[in-house]
Amino acid sequence: MITLTSDFGLKDPYVAEMKGVILTINPEATIIDITHDIEKFNRRMAAFMLASAVPYFPKGTVHLAVVDPGVGTERRAIVIQTKKSFFVGPDNGILILAAQSQGIERAYQLTNPKLMLPKISNTFQGRDVFAPAAANLEKGVEPSEFGPEIKDPIKPEFAKVEQISGSVIGEVMHVDGFGNIITNINEIETVKNRFKTVDVKLPRISLKLKFGKAYAQTEPKEPIILIGSHGFLEIALNQGDAAEKFHAKPGDKIAVTPS
Amino acid sequence: MITLTSDFGLKDPYVAEMKGVILTINPEATIIDITHDIEKFNRRMAAFMLASAVPYFPKGTVHLAVVDPGVGTERRAIVIQTKKSFFVGPDNGILILAAQSQGIERAYQLTNPKLMLPKISNTFQGRDVFAPAAANLEKGVEPSEFGPEIKDPIKPEFAKVEQISGSVIGEVMHVDGFGNIITNINEIETVKNRFKTVDVKLPRISLKLKFGKAYAQTEPKEPIILIGSHGFLEIALNQGDAAEKFHAKPGDKIAVTPS
Amino acid sequence: MITLTSDFGLKDPYVAEMKGVILTINPEATIIDITHDIEKFNRRMAAFMLASAVPYFPKGTVHLAVVDPGVGTERRAIVIQTKKSFFVGPDNGILILAAQSQGIERAYQLTNPKLMLPKISNTFQGRDVFAPAAANLEKGVEPSEFGPEIKDPIKPEFAKVEQISGSVIGEVMHVDGFGNIITNINEIETVKNRFKTVDVKLPRISLKLKFGKAYAQTEPKEPIILIGSHGFLEIALNQGDAAEKFHAKPGDKIAVTPS
Repeated sequence: MITLTSDFGLKDPYVAEMKGVILTINPEATIIDITHDIEKFNRRMAAFMLASAVPYFPKGTVHLAVVDPGVGTERRAIVIQTKKSFFVGPDNGILILAAQSQGIERAYQLTNPKLMLPKISNTFQGRDVFAPAAANLEKGVEPSEFGPEIKDPIKPEFAKVEQISGSVIGEVMHVDGFGNIITNINEIETVKNRFKTVDVKLPRISLKLKFGKAYAQTEPKEPIILIGSHGFLEIALNQGDAAEKFHAKPGDKIAVTPS
Repeated sequence: MITLTSDFGLKDPYVAEMKGVILTINPEATIIDITHDIEKFNRRMAAFMLASAVPYFPKGTVHLAVVDPGVGTERRAIVIQTKKSFFVGPDNGILILAAQSQGIERAYQLTNPKLMLPKISNTFQGRDVFAPAAANLEKGVEPSEFGPEIKDPIKPEFAKVEQISGSVIGEVMHVDGFGNIITNINEIETVKNRFKTVDVKLPRISLKLKFGKAYAQTEPKEPIILIGSHGFLEIALNQGDAAEKFHAKPGDKIAVTPS
Repeated sequence: MITLTSDFGLKDPYVAEMKGVILTINPEATIIDITHDIEKFNRRMAAFMLASAVPYFPKGTVHLAVVDPGVGTERRAIVIQTKKSFFVGPDNGILILAAQSQGIERAYQLTNPKLMLPKISNTFQGRDVFAPAAANLEKGVEPSEFGPEIKDPIKPEFAKVEQISGSVIGEVMHVDGFGNIITNINEIETVKNRFKTVDVKLPRISLKLKFGKAYAQTEPKEPIILIGSHGFLEIALNQGDAAEKFHAKPGDKIAVTPS
């Protein structure tokens, strides 16, 4: 199985071309789209999406991700082998969050031209380099055949969660299609301090919120704070758009304090 | 074969996570998206989409649909067995229109934790409850193994079509991506009274329309009324957006009278 | 393998219905979406998308495309057999650009009702005529069984590239999701005159541009001109939207002159 994640959108034929390349090399591959609507060039969002989705895919899956402002420059193309699966994409940090969650075993640079398309464009390595790599990995080609081992894949510098004098300080990672404000504060930090109400500080608003379990535990259009389906702290409106109401966006700092 | 219908959109990884869960349980499943762009929480639209699409899928298909404002509350999760296929989703009316069209045989509540993911979130039962159910049904697990039989699945209260003193009174069910205004008035009512022109009353406009067979039977940007591809009465502009021009939206009452 | 291209969008169940029809006739078919977000009724864009994507699909693939303002009228439904694959769709020019690139061998009209759905609507031949044709071709039915051979499929009249007193004059074919301005001027014309900078004239702006190889060869938000991944001349901003900045849109004339 091969998953695809990108900022290519579905309006253009780019995603289909990657699939055509994969299925030409490996007609038996099952291909699943994670999303192609990553905000253009937003590596943080790509890393978060990939890390959210990969736990639900079976052992041996090949995850191809391309959000690649540096395409055609000297940035490396890489494959990472973890205890559970393979990751293919540019060496710009988007693969590491998901790969680390599975335990990284080895990483290699993609340099072997025999495992690429015969003609490589400078603007679309998703099709010319990464798609053939994913199809060949799925067929059983060893990661070491793609190129030299590397020890220093680039690590993303996303904000860490801190605990300062009773408050948990994190960051808004993502606003989903429902307008839910998803933070990087995960269950481990919060269950230790499970409380009935919390004070939340966002850049443009301060809130006192009820801690709940399901969106529908409040009245329609009322806010709630809960642990979302990926294990991260999340602020939501029941059947409404929390990000719009509270003017929140990815990258915003957030402080959570027990009332 | 398994179909998926939801209001999750394709920007987030939610749909991919359901697919990962299905393919982990049942690697041979063929998964087809009906749509994930149902208006958020719009059960009427979900019911209409599902009922439109299911006639074109083969016997034995499992149809999973999730538009679920009550996720995490006491609303039941159900599987419905019909003469032709299976329906999996929340017990909030979205499955019934399509299921009834195939003849409902039995319905069961999903309560057996062995046929769910080991850890159930309160906010994403599409992934944690419905996806495993669909994958297991497709593998041949009997509906009765999921939980107790129920006799009272919730029925949606969508407007009925009435005939009042020579007029047919119905409702706008859907505006499609072309701007076509699709009603709930179906062929049975209209063929009996097939006429050359009709008077149409919508909330914001009254029209006299030519009854036709194909969009291109009028001049570009001119309106026409016809029986659409799902057998429902539909108002369209040739190569234009009828809903925009006539200010029509789902839920609008519509009266059709022979001229 | 069967590919699908249309202007149906993904909000409505139309694409899913085509897939259901295909998989009912041919459960083993692998179906890949090229795109369903062609601008409504834009045959030029459909032709360009299809021609861009088909080189990446394996021999024997069936390509179904529907952008069809004349559905339900006398326009013919056709299948084209090329040296590499099959094309199915309306006879309105959208298939020809892609088919010619592979070498057209024969074309037939789709008239045999035994190879259509039993009930044909006047508004959705994608589902009722083209989907069954694609599924049957993939199963091995001979093109000649669909109907009479035709010698005159309609050819699109897209602008040709001209060379006038040192300038290359072409047209903007497409603006992609990144805002890249893709022209119909292909590598053959331009490599002959590879230069360091060029003067570009668009309807609303004149530019002097650096000729490069990769988007990231300029500073962020700076423009560059290069040969894109399909071999066509393309104007881009590094991590920005060139079409918005330079007010360019499909159909615009473009003149390129060595500085």
